[in-house]
Amino acid sequence: MARGVALKRRFPHVQTTAHRVRYGETDRMGVVYYAHYFAWFEAGRGDYLRELGADYRMLEEGRGVFIPVLEASAKYRRGAEFDDVVLIATSIEEANRVRLRFSYEVHRQSDGELLASGSTIHAAVGRDGRARPMPRELLRLIPIDEGD
Amino acid sequence: MARGVALKRRFPHVQTTAHRVRYGETDRMGVVYYAHYFAWFEAGRGDYLRELGADYRMLEEGRGVFIPVLEASAKYRRGAEFDDVVLIATSIEEANRVRLRFSYEVHRQSDGELLASGSTIHAAVGRDGRARPMPRELLRLIPIDEGD
Amino acid sequence: MARGVALKRRFPHVQTTAHRVRYGETDRMGVVYYAHYFAWFEAGRGDYLRELGADYRMLEEGRGVFIPVLEASAKYRRGAEFDDVVLIATSIEEANRVRLRFSYEVHRQSDGELLASGSTIHAAVGRDGRARPMPRELLRLIPIDEGD
Amino acid sequence: MARGVALKRRFPHVQTTAHRVRYGETDRMGVVYYAHYFAWFEAGRGDYLRELGADYRMLEEGRGVFIPVLEASAKYRRGAEFDDVVLIATSIEEANRVRLRFSYEVHRQSDGELLASGSTIHAAVGRDGRARPMPRELLRLIPIDEGD
Repeated sequence: MARGVALKRRFPHVQTTAHRVRYGETDRMGVVYYAHYFAWFEAGRGDYLRELGADYRMLEEGRGVFIPVLEASAKYRRGAEFDDVVLIATSIEEANRVRLRFSYEVHRQSDGELLASGSTIHAAVGRDGRARPMPRELLRLIPIDEGD
Repeated sequence: MARGVALKRRFPHVQTTAHRVRYGETDRMGVVYYAHYFAWFEAGRGDYLRELGADYRMLEEGRGVFIPVLEASAKYRRGAEFDDVVLIATSIEEANRVRLRFSYEVHRQSDGELLASGSTIHAAVGRDGRARPMPRELLRLIPIDEGD
Repeated sequence: MARGVALKRRFPHVQTTAHRVRYGETDRMGVVYYAHYFAWFEAGRGDYLRELGADYRMLEEGRGVFIPVLEASAKYRRGAEFDDVVLIATSIEEANRVRLRFSYEVHRQSDGELLASGSTIHAAVGRDGRARPMPRELLRLIPIDEGD
Repeated sequence: MARGVALKRRFPHVQTTAHRVRYGETDRMGVVYYAHYFAWFEAGRGDYLRELGADYRMLEEGRGVFIPVLEASAKYRRGAEFDDVVLIATSIEEANRVRLRFSYEVHRQSDGELLASGSTIHAAVGRDGRARPMPRELLRLIPIDEGD
């Protein structure tokens, strides 16, 4: 059914990272300061890649390939509070020789409330800082839903 | 002329904040970690409001009005390096009873190179966390280009 | 035996917190920036108190008791690197009505290498910011080695 | 006179760095989180060295000499609050071929109140991570009080 097809994710893997909110991540409003979500996103995509078997550190150190952030965005719905456990759900929305796009949702573990969502777009560069194709060895690891 | 009108900014004020990149803001790629730009944006909008005569701390403490971030985004073009002086140019793109939208550009001082740009969207909430109109006393301070 | 007594810890509980080093915690030297260890120490003492059954958040919110840091120190022996798992071992060295002293060791999980050690000293204050005795309900939870 | 000698500083230079407290530096207690003072100390010693004419970035990049932190400590007396301007006064207490020791005081600009003090101890290492003597070119720049 068309509807079923539409709902399917092309990249079905979702990786969940748990994090307990630290005191130092809160600000005087009593909730987590907005910039810290981007550090949580990084933890999420690190776990995503590691779970697939990719070794990002080796990619940098051995192959001289870096995958910096080109764009980042977040929407905030509810504040995470000190001592909350948050779950960062990371998935991939786009993966090709030009770029990777990660997508994130942060939920409060206790009640499942969605606190924030976001995305980051990445490209590959070499040690010289020049753009290069996203490594095939990385792309091959990303599970694709082959469809019906 | 239509062209002239189109080029005019509705909110013409641009505030510049200088910041010297700290060692701790860099990451192992040798450039500033992407999340720190959002802290720089905060410094930029703080200076913007202060320059207009707004006292955000008093707004919170005296009036019980908070203006949290609802959305944030950034695009990264070049890495800022340790010891660089960066200039954060902050302006307002939208200001009404529902929301504020700030826009930012980060340039390297030495050669004017654009390193990153971004925006944040804010709404007003009361001490109870409920949405409320953006305070008129704040909106009144934001200079508007009255046109021809 | 005297030697045995000397080796005994008055407060025998040691709490271990695992943390995977994030990219954003490294600096351009390729190792974790020194200030982040203090955030790790905070995670360590949070787990320590939680494990004992203390609810620090409730202590603040319900009782109006805060336990800020008065002094903090760290010694650095080896750099933690991106993607390392570090183990923060937290113990208490002193606990009385005047102050708490936590002690920390950070080891690399892979080979047990000691990376850093440190301590923090805390006192209790009320909502008014004035010093007050450390709450007995907290002290009671801290296990003491009663000796021979 | 002995008294006069005792009061003199061997390294008389004191460098002052101003910083406006950002929202994201506060925590839910409403004051600056303790770990951020170490980032301020870094800004202070960076300004100290730059003022003397030392180029720490060039020392790393050109000479392959790094001066990491071996020990760090801080004492906290009063909390810095959002929007406060703080002045970080940095001086050197010890400077020789084995180590540098910086000392810091953080004062609130508005009333001069001492908020925190601290120190850091540094050694020199080469690109290989091995200890090496502190560069003479750096030590030569540090002004010494030659006494009577």
